[in-house]
Order: sequence, then C-alpha cells, then structure tokens
Amino acid sequence: MNTLEEKQKEVAEKYNSEHFREQAHRVVDLLADYIAQSTQNREERMFCYDTPEKMYQKFKTDFREPAPYEEDVLIKDILKDVTQLHHPHYLGHQVSSPLPSSALADFCAALLNNSNCVYEMGPVACGIEKSVIDWLCSKIGFDESSGGFLTSGGSLGNLTALLAARQSKVPYDIWQEGVEKDNLCFLVSSQCHYSVKRAVAIMGLGNKNAIPIPVNENFQTDLKELEKAYNRAHQEGKVVLGVVANACCTATGSYDDLEGIGKFANEHNLWFHVDGAHGAPALLSETHKHKLKGIERADSVVWDAHKMMMTSAIVTGVLFKNADNAHHIFSQNASYILDRNQKNNWFDFALQTLECTKPFMSLKVYASLKLYGEKFFGDYVDYVYQLTSNFAEYIKQSDDFELAVEPQSNIICFRYIKSSQNLNELQISIREKILKSEKFYIVKTELNGNIYLRCTIINPHTKFEHLMELVEAIRKFAK
Amino acid sequence: MNTLEEKQKEVAEKYNSEHFREQAHRVVDLLADYIAQSTQNREERMFCYDTPEKMYQKFKTDFREPAPYEEDVLIKDILKDVTQLHHPHYLGHQVSSPLPSSALADFCAALLNNSNCVYEMGPVACGIEKSVIDWLCSKIGFDESSGGFLTSGGSLGNLTALLAARQSKVPYDIWQEGVEKDNLCFLVSSQCHYSVKRAVAIMGLGNKNAIPIPVNENFQTDLKELEKAYNRAHQEGKVVLGVVANACCTATGSYDDLEGIGKFANEHNLWFHVDGAHGAPALLSETHKHKLKGIERADSVVWDAHKMMMTSAIVTGVLFKNADNAHHIFSQNASYILDRNQKNNWFDFALQTLECTKPFMSLKVYASLKLYGEKFFGDYVDYVYQLTSNFAEYIKQSDDFELAVEPQSNIICFRYIKSSQNLNELQISIREKILKSEKFYIVKTELNGNIYLRCTIINPHTKFEHLMELVEAIRKFAK
Repeated sequence: MNTLEEKQKEVAEKYNSEHFREQAHRVVDLLADYIAQSTQNREERMFCYDTPEKMYQKFKTDFREPAPYEEDVLIKDILKDVTQLHHPHYLGHQVSSPLPSSALADFCAALLNNSNCVYEMGPVACGIEKSVIDWLCSKIGFDESSGGFLTSGGSLGNLTALLAARQSKVPYDIWQEGVEKDNLCFLVSSQCHYSVKRAVAIMGLGNKNAIPIPVNENFQTDLKELEKAYNRAHQEGKVVLGVVANACCTATGSYDDLEGIGKFANEHNLWFHVDGAHGAPALLSETHKHKLKGIERADSVVWDAHKMMMTSAIVTGVLFKNADNAHHIFSQNASYILDRNQKNNWFDFALQTLECTKPFMSLKVYASLKLYGEKFFGDYVDYVYQLTSNFAEYIKQSDDFELAVEPQSNIICFRYIKSSQNLNELQISIREKILKSEKFYIVKTELNGNIYLRCTIINPHTKFEHLMELVEAIRKFAK
Repeated sequence: MNTLEEKQKEVAEKYNSEHFREQAHRVVDLLADYIAQSTQNREERMFCYDTPEKMYQKFKTDFREPAPYEEDVLIKDILKDVTQLHHPHYLGHQVSSPLPSSALADFCAALLNNSNCVYEMGPVACGIEKSVIDWLCSKIGFDESSGGFLTSGGSLGNLTALLAARQSKVPYDIWQEGVEKDNLCFLVSSQCHYSVKRAVAIMGLGNKNAIPIPVNENFQTDLKELEKAYNRAHQEGKVVLGVVANACCTATGSYDDLEGIGKFANEHNLWFHVDGAHGAPALLSETHKHKLKGIERADSVVWDAHKMMMTSAIVTGVLFKNADNAHHIFSQNASYILDRNQKNNWFDFALQTLECTKPFMSLKVYASLKLYGEKFFGDYVDYVYQLTSNFAEYIKQSDDFELAVEPQSNIICFRYIKSSQNLNELQISIREKILKSEKFYIVKTELNGNIYLRCTIINPHTKFEHLMELVEAIRKFAK
C-alpha cells in the first residue's frame, strides 16, 4: 500500500510538462501529416467500413494494465482507420472539415478547461462567449436587447429555444405545475430536423402536438398550409405556442420563407423559432443572405458553428430577440413570479443553458473569426453553395441522373435512373457499394417515397473534379 | 469579385499543413510552459477577477478584419488571464484539472471530428465509445444486458436518464400523447443537483412533482422520510415513477445509502436513478468503493469523466442496467408500439442520445484509461479523498474553524467562527476577499441556513501545505 505522498507523486507525474511537450510535438506532426495527406487526396481510402462488431473488438479492453506505449502510438493507431473529413471525397452529413486553427483552439480549451457556467470559473470564457453572441445577434439583425448563449449542439439548442417558447406562451405556470392539458402545440415544418419534434415530446406536450406543416415542391413550408393548420388547431381547442421554420432544412437544404412565416407568427402572437443550424451562416454571404430575409422577426434562432463555420463539433448559438427570454427558460413563468425589473446578468450562463459545466466552446469560434475575419466565412459559403449549383447543373444535363430539387444551399439530392431495376433499391445498392469501396462517403434520403443519393459539399477541398469522380463511381456501381 | 477558383484557394489555404505544423508546435510550447508554471505554483496569481463588463470589453470585436497576428499570439493572450485549474490553489467547483494526455486526445478528436451519431460517420469513435461504456458498466456491477452511451455533461445525462424512466414507467403512451394529468412524480433527495429538479420540470411533469426527500444530519437521503413521502404521494393520487439518489451530493459530497434506497425502489417497482456524476469513480478505489454499495440495483447511473477522471469537460456516461431502455428514450412507449423482439443495435447512438452530432468525446476517456490503467484513477481518488479527510481533521482541531459535516469524498464545507460578526456575512466577505486576491479559488454553499466556505480538492497538485496557505489567508481576511 502506497503512502499518501507516493500516491500524490504517482498521479502528479502524469502532468509532467516535459513529457507532455515531447508527446504533444509528436502528435502535432502526426496531425499535420494527416492534414497534408487527407486534403491532397493522396490516399484513396478515406474511411474504414468494417462492421460495428469488428470495430468494437478492435478497441475492446479491460483497462487493467497501462499500455506499453505512449500518446503518439495511440494516436497513430486511431489515425489509421479514422473517417477523413478533410478528404475531398467526404461528401456526407452536415459535419464540418474543421479548420486546423479551430482544432488548436479546442486543444487549448481542453487543457485549460475554463467552464463558464459561473462567471468566476472562467471570466475569460465568459467575455469571449459574450463577444461571439453579440456578433451572431448582429448578423441576424437583432438589436441590443437581444442575447443568448452557446450550447452543445443544434438538438439541444432547439430544445432550449422551445423551452423558452413554452415559458413565454403557456398561459399558466407550466414550470411549477406541469402540463395541465394535452392541447399545447407547435406548428413545425414537415421537413424540420427530428430534434424539433423530439423536443416537443421531451417537454411533455406529446409528439402529436408537433403539428407538421406540408411543404411545397421545393420542400419549403407552405404558407397556406400553415394558415390552415393554425385555424384547424384553433377549432380543435388547441393553444398554438409557436411556429418552427427551417433555414435551411436537413434533407434538401431548402430555405423557408422566413419573411412570410415570421409575419404570420408575429401577427398571431406566436413564438417564431428559426432552426438555422445549417444555413444561418449564409447571412455572411452577400450573394446568399437574401435567402434568410425575415430572420430578424424570429424570437429565437439556432446557429451551429460546427456545420458551416468550420469548427469542430459541437458549438451552437441559441439567440433570442429578447435576451430576457434566455433567463426564464428554467424558472417560474415570468408573469407569475419574477420581478420584470430585476436585471438579468448576461454572464449568469448556468441560468440559461441546460448544461451546468460547459466546455470553453466559444474559443474555437472566436479564434477562427478573429484570425480570418467574417468575410472569409462568407467566401466559404459562396464557394460551396456555387459548387453545389454547378454540380446540380451537371446532374440535370446528364440523362442517366435525376435531380430531386434545385439546391438552395450546399446540399444536393439526386438519383441514378438509367436502369430497369427498382430505382429505390438501386440507389441503396449503389450507396452500399460506394461505402464498401471506402473511397467516398455519401448519404441518402427519402423524399416523397423516392430514395435519393445525398451529398453535403461542406469540405472546401472538394472541387468539381472530385464530384466527377463520384459520378464515375456511381455509374460503375450502377451496372 | 473573386472567381470560384480563387475563393476555393483562399479558404483551402487556411488548412495549410505546414502553417498548422509551425503554429501548433508554438502553441504546444506555450501550453507546456503553462503546465510547468501552474502546477508548480510559480505564479501567485491564479486567475483574473476583473468585472464581467471589463472582461467583455477586452474581447469585444466586430470581426470585420483579420487580426494582424497568428494562432500563437492569440493563445498567449488568452493564457494571461485564464483561470488556472492546474494551480494547487484551485479549490473550487467540481471541474477537473485535466490530464495533459486527455487534452491531447481532445485535440485529435477536434481535428478529426468523427461524430458517432451514425455508425458510418465514425466507426472508430463507435468502437471506442462501446469499449468505454462496457468498462463503466462492469465497474458498476451491471451484467451483459447493460449498456448506454456518452453525452454532453451530467445535467443532460440526468435528463436523458429520467426520460428513460418516464418512458418505462408511465402507464400510457406519454411520448405520443403528452402528459395527461399533473400526477406523475419523482422522489428526489433534497440535496440532489439542480439539474434533477430541472429535468422533471423540462419533461412537463412540473417542478412540484420533483418531491424532495429530507436528508439526515450527514446530508444523506433519509430512508424513513423516503417511505413517508412515497406513502403520502400515493394517498394524494400521484404515480411515483422513480427515486433519484446521490453518489455523492454536490454541496457536501455525501453518499446516499444506495443499498437501502435501491431495495426500496426495487420492491416498489420504481425506477432507481443514481446521480454518480461526481462520486461514481470511487468504485475504482478499494478503500472507498464500499460507499457505493447497492449501485448495481440502479436502473440508470450518470458518471462524469470530467470531474473525478481528470478529463476536460464534458463527457458523461449514461448507463442502463437494461440496454433496451436506452433505445426507447425518444420513441413511443415500448409496451404499446415496439416489437420487444426487435434487436436494438448498440451502435445506433443517435436513437439514444439527445445530441445528433456528438463530439468524439470517448477518445479522451479511452486514451487516459489505456495509457495509465484503471488503478491509476483509484489511486487518484484515494489521494484526494484522504487529503480532504486530513484537512477536515485539522479544521476540527482548530478552535477558530468549524466543520459542517464529516467529508465522505473530496468536498469539504467549513466556516470561520472566531468573530462577533454575523457569521454568514463573515464567510461571504472572507470569500470575496480571497477571490479579489486572485490567489485562491474557493466557493461557498448554504446548509441549514448557514453559509460555509466550500472546497473541492480535485487537483492532484494540491497538498496539505497548500491547504494551510488557504487557512492562513482566511485568518488574515477574517480580521
């Protein structure tokens, strides 16, 4: 049995700064080599498609004995099979190919571990978060009464925003008393992210009360259907708390008419929530910001930096037109209990976020913005949106392919059609073969009963030539 | 207006591997220097206690123009005022002084950005997460039917576990239909973390239905009071869904009698949730694991690695005795809809976690466990728990101090009493002066109407001599 002093030494030894320095320098070289190889497409294989069981067996361990190697060997082993999000053939879900500077900021954030749920725990983290939130709000067009916070991802962001809506719009003290009747509802685009419907059910309102609004042929929420649904809900004795719009939606990347929906919501005194997790950063592009016209009408907006602002996952802005709403999310209904004249401190983050301890997540957003300036991110949006349009043009002109809908962002859905086979089965089989080749990563989606191949062109290393390589692979696997 | 090609080049340039290599090496040296200085207490000032407004002004920026410097300068500036969690005088909240190896793992996780909500997106991340979950479950004493996932912090973990309880125990399809009556309740320790009561209110059950169970003089949930509350709830027509116990509680670090509460819950067919966010890792210590006797009776356990396993924030295990429960959290009530014979795939993480995109958070836990072995973490628990006991002994023997309660973990509450002043005001004033000195970070808590100074001895660099330095500072500021 070790003495207390020996145990202290044993543990403290793992913090040895010179060991860290040596290992960290080695890991930096490994990561720099990874970036060089991956972005330049020097390796054909860009991920490992082994079965879950095989992957599990590979890493299964009882952790009884320390490994006979150090950090660099462990990381080298991870790098072998990792999914390379920096590879130009990474065309899958809406997860960024992180900027190296953002990863470096995360490294510092991880070591320093300054949380900001309480101001004292991380004054620097609080100052930086406020600075990022201010900027996000200003881009939306919110005035100085706005505010908000960063949180762990868009799903949690949507939940937190809808909790604010519930607090604000329910005509009794629902926080204290609970749901009294199953008649509280939200009107949500039928194309909204699954986390929106989930949030309504989590809050105890019932999945049935996330009432889906049909979309038009471009997968945008239909304004006439919105009005119909609103009237129907009223006739059924429901209390409509709010409307959720997409900017843009997940499946096809289509932007809702925020101006139209916002007007409707404002006129009927409904909470207006915009899920801008993917598409809000188009506000930084002079070419594309018109797609978000009306977003300033929102009561709350969710904006992910880990999608279209090239940071690592996860960091989401939850932004409120009226900052006070952020302070009443987890408390008694303001109108019953709180003194409206009481000042809400922006730096009391634990009162606003669902997390208690929260990572120093503002640093990576701040660092990239500070180093490159906001125009850089607008140029990035311009590039990937335009490349997606160009790809759509090619698809339309190819008689063996069919485009699902004109892309409005950097998400594109299309299918291979030159076949007598069942087309849905064909797309599934093509994608499976592509994944098995381990040379591309693409996904699929179902629209109106048809299955389409789906790409998010989110990696700035992807060029038109890489999309042509994908097209060739699809043609090969379709045979 | 740049051409498309120029924009691509402009963006891709920021991924230049050689620029990254150079800057990352510089940042590594800055961080290694920080560790050396901070752990060795070479700097007296261990955080910056400027006002929120001043901190905000320091970092306020419009991000219009790129900064005229690079990553290293930005990080150097952050390091100046950061709260040094590695400083032996860091004695505040339950946030770890991260192991450098864990920060290095986070660095890789951030750059690689392999999420695992969908298996294909991160096969490696899925394999590693499963390996970590298996180990956590085995330490609890769960058998092979157990399972779970990692999530973004203990608060989200508690919410997710209680959602599973709601799905499992409510006698109607609450997911689809919503809360039908305000009679669904949980019995929760009056000392439980605020996130537990919040979770009950978030779920629409009403804050009033998080029924607090009084604690005994050691701040442990009182079994007789539990039974009384259960009977009273029944008489009032409430449906008791579950019981929440602490291992350990936040304020005083006391462990509930899990064996007793677990038996009670099992006998009455109640969901038994253990909030082990802080104290579950004591299972790794031969000396202290007896404090968690009975934890294997739990239906769900929350276990933070970013508190007592020395990783950076945030990574929390949400562990279920029956893995199937993790798969029904966000879906129709199993008994109504789901085919119980349908196999739930462990690797379908998005069905289980509230997050959609989730960081590669398993890597930092895996890396430290793999490199050091599990016994290392038990030794760490032994060290900080014993040091806290020794400090308590000193406090008890000092006639100018009073201990609130015998510490059962590494959290200690005490107050300075040699004064004719109002003692509550005195503790507040002492703490404020300590914070203003910027030489120590400690917190405070209220117990039975009295305010106590509160320390979490979580940094393995803290030795008895540092606690004596704190005692001297308190005596000085009490004058």
